[in-house]
Amino acid sequence: MTVRCQPVLGILGGGQLARMLALAAAPLGVKTLVVDSAPDACAGQVAPLRLADWTDYAALEKFAAEVDVVTFDFENVPAETAHWLAERVAVFPDPRALAVAQDRLAEKTLFRECGLQTPAFEAVDTRADLDRALAVIGAPAILKTRRLGYDGKGQFRIKQLSDADAAWAALGAQASAHGLILEAFVPFDRELSVLAVRARDGDFRIWPLTQNWHTDGVLSFSLAPALDVGGLQPRAEELARILAERLGYVGVFALELFVKDGQLLGNEMAPRVHNSGHWTIEGAVASQFENHVRAVLGLPLGDTAVRGFSAMFNWIGELPDAISVLNTVDAHWHDYGKQPRPGRKVGHATVCAKEARDLALRIDEIARALKREEQVAPALKVLG
Amino acid sequence: MTVRCQPVLGILGGGQLARMLALAAAPLGVKTLVVDSAPDACAGQVAPLRLADWTDYAALEKFAAEVDVVTFDFENVPAETAHWLAERVAVFPDPRALAVAQDRLAEKTLFRECGLQTPAFEAVDTRADLDRALAVIGAPAILKTRRLGYDGKGQFRIKQLSDADAAWAALGAQASAHGLILEAFVPFDRELSVLAVRARDGDFRIWPLTQNWHTDGVLSFSLAPALDVGGLQPRAEELARILAERLGYVGVFALELFVKDGQLLGNEMAPRVHNSGHWTIEGAVASQFENHVRAVLGLPLGDTAVRGFSAMFNWIGELPDAISVLNTVDAHWHDYGKQPRPGRKVGHATVCAKEARDLALRIDEIARALKREEQVAPALKVLG
Repeated sequence: MTVRCQPVLGILGGGQLARMLALAAAPLGVKTLVVDSAPDACAGQVAPLRLADWTDYAALEKFAAEVDVVTFDFENVPAETAHWLAERVAVFPDPRALAVAQDRLAEKTLFRECGLQTPAFEAVDTRADLDRALAVIGAPAILKTRRLGYDGKGQFRIKQLSDADAAWAALGAQASAHGLILEAFVPFDRELSVLAVRARDGDFRIWPLTQNWHTDGVLSFSLAPALDVGGLQPRAEELARILAERLGYVGVFALELFVKDGQLLGNEMAPRVHNSGHWTIEGAVASQFENHVRAVLGLPLGDTAVRGFSAMFNWIGELPDAISVLNTVDAHWHDYGKQPRPGRKVGHATVCAKEARDLALRIDEIARALKREEQVAPALKVLG
Repeated sequence: MTVRCQPVLGILGGGQLARMLALAAAPLGVKTLVVDSAPDACAGQVAPLRLADWTDYAALEKFAAEVDVVTFDFENVPAETAHWLAERVAVFPDPRALAVAQDRLAEKTLFRECGLQTPAFEAVDTRADLDRALAVIGAPAILKTRRLGYDGKGQFRIKQLSDADAAWAALGAQASAHGLILEAFVPFDRELSVLAVRARDGDFRIWPLTQNWHTDGVLSFSLAPALDVGGLQPRAEELARILAERLGYVGVFALELFVKDGQLLGNEMAPRVHNSGHWTIEGAVASQFENHVRAVLGLPLGDTAVRGFSAMFNWIGELPDAISVLNTVDAHWHDYGKQPRPGRKVGHATVCAKEARDLALRIDEIARALKREEQVAPALKVLG
């Protein structure tokens, strides 16, 4: 009988995604080691935490020696750090995929090359570029940083052409460092996301499409499987597969999509587990967290079938009272162990049901108890 | 906005039960602190671990100051330690309940007082007591230590009356320290267990009955819900409720039962989450681990309904190759992160299916791949 050795998964970033990855890794016999610059990073409550920033190569050298595989909780790890680590230890997804997803221009260009349409876009590096781009795209449009934006950060909405000066005042300073992109504003019919996973051996699976609602640029509510998607499900699967193969992607990723006149438009790709897939913890046979761990460790993928219908409330800023969720059948509370702060994702709740009408009853009851009827209203409309 | 404080659950003992409790506590926003005398206690991989033995009151004093509620991974924590802690911090279940469950004589006496029949039993403190008890009970019978026995340890099977000397040679030395008990050997038809949970406010719930198979006194395989139980389910619920109320019990407990000629006989009570309830992680809406955490923290209980049929393989001594489990639909791998050792519980796998016949196909396939047909044969017979 040999002494066995558990593989160690290193995670760059110690937020709630790392925390939920660590909780999914433990039953698989996979130890987790998290690196973050914040001593109170919430993943540190469930896994050992090494304190380091992304340029502390002495600390990262020790970290690399302690782990078997490295992955990401946070897609904005500098590309240099990811490449430097990849020379020392297996890193999944590949830093080149990360680099594409970090750059809105490269990302949208790739989407189009893969056959996924996108809103019109133009690169903007100078004030003159912005005028040229506005002349092509028109208003309304959104000026965004090419890099380091998420959850609506680093964006300025141009409602009319005369807003160009204000947009440049807000984001122009970042043009030289990160580059900007002007995107047409699409009055979409709805927002969907597809969560997909690709294994080291190329096995590829997706969970059913999720419908999402945002508030102030931050995900507020999700419903899965999205209803009445018809041919969009196989189309999303095909596109996600092409994209994953093109990137040699390993692990879970999310593709945020707009639906306009029955067509899918690519908004952005998140090269990691994603907020709109948190419902898979209870709502699917294998969660996005478990399958990401399986994929990056080279294990076979788990089944992405759903157990029924699921809905997710996102808790932003602070947690509401948990009691109404804890008292609801098949409702599941997720507290990330973070201090409250305006705009911060501090937890979520997933509500499941075999039948869509039971799901509607349950989320309605919770929303009433918490006086959050607005958060569920659009989903209740969809659920009929 | 106030800075929130997560409650801390202290767990005495850092084995796989503490590990799975900690994994269930995290999403509820409950931090875990484990105390164990072994530096490599496997719960220490997912929660902070304090090293102390059960008489290190200086360490226990610090532990008590760091936690809000104390519970048990291990029922053989000395009663004095549990009582000492209960004077300093909330301890659930109550140490008095623990004391009853630690003593086979008190336990079986209580079962009878609650209306649960048991195999015939007699207290044995001396060699002469053993002869008297054998004259009443006859052979076959089992001589057991009253305390500190589990998984078939501290037991001697008396096949015929002439085995009395050998039995006394094996266990007589423990008679003065722990006391012994002679129990009639019941050629039972099957073994069931009921997992139950009682909240601080008295709310009481049970999961459906589980059928169990043991090998060498250690649980080998479980099937839930047990098939063809008829009136035994409400009867088990009634008995478990009476017992829990009698003990003022808070938390999850298991009642191991024999079925003989359609009647339930009480074998033993485990005052904690139990190996025969591990299937509830994936097979029920709320697992035994989540509901134990909810109960001892004073939160509302979760739903104990099942999602379908579940079976559990116990991995004893060492883990088999995980691949066949990872490749099976709705099969879930649980590695406790322990070093292999003969007789040690090192992991389990739960297999779920909506239909019993699919469950049979899945466990048969895994058993064949692992050459463990014997482990599943009795369950396959039950599943038809």
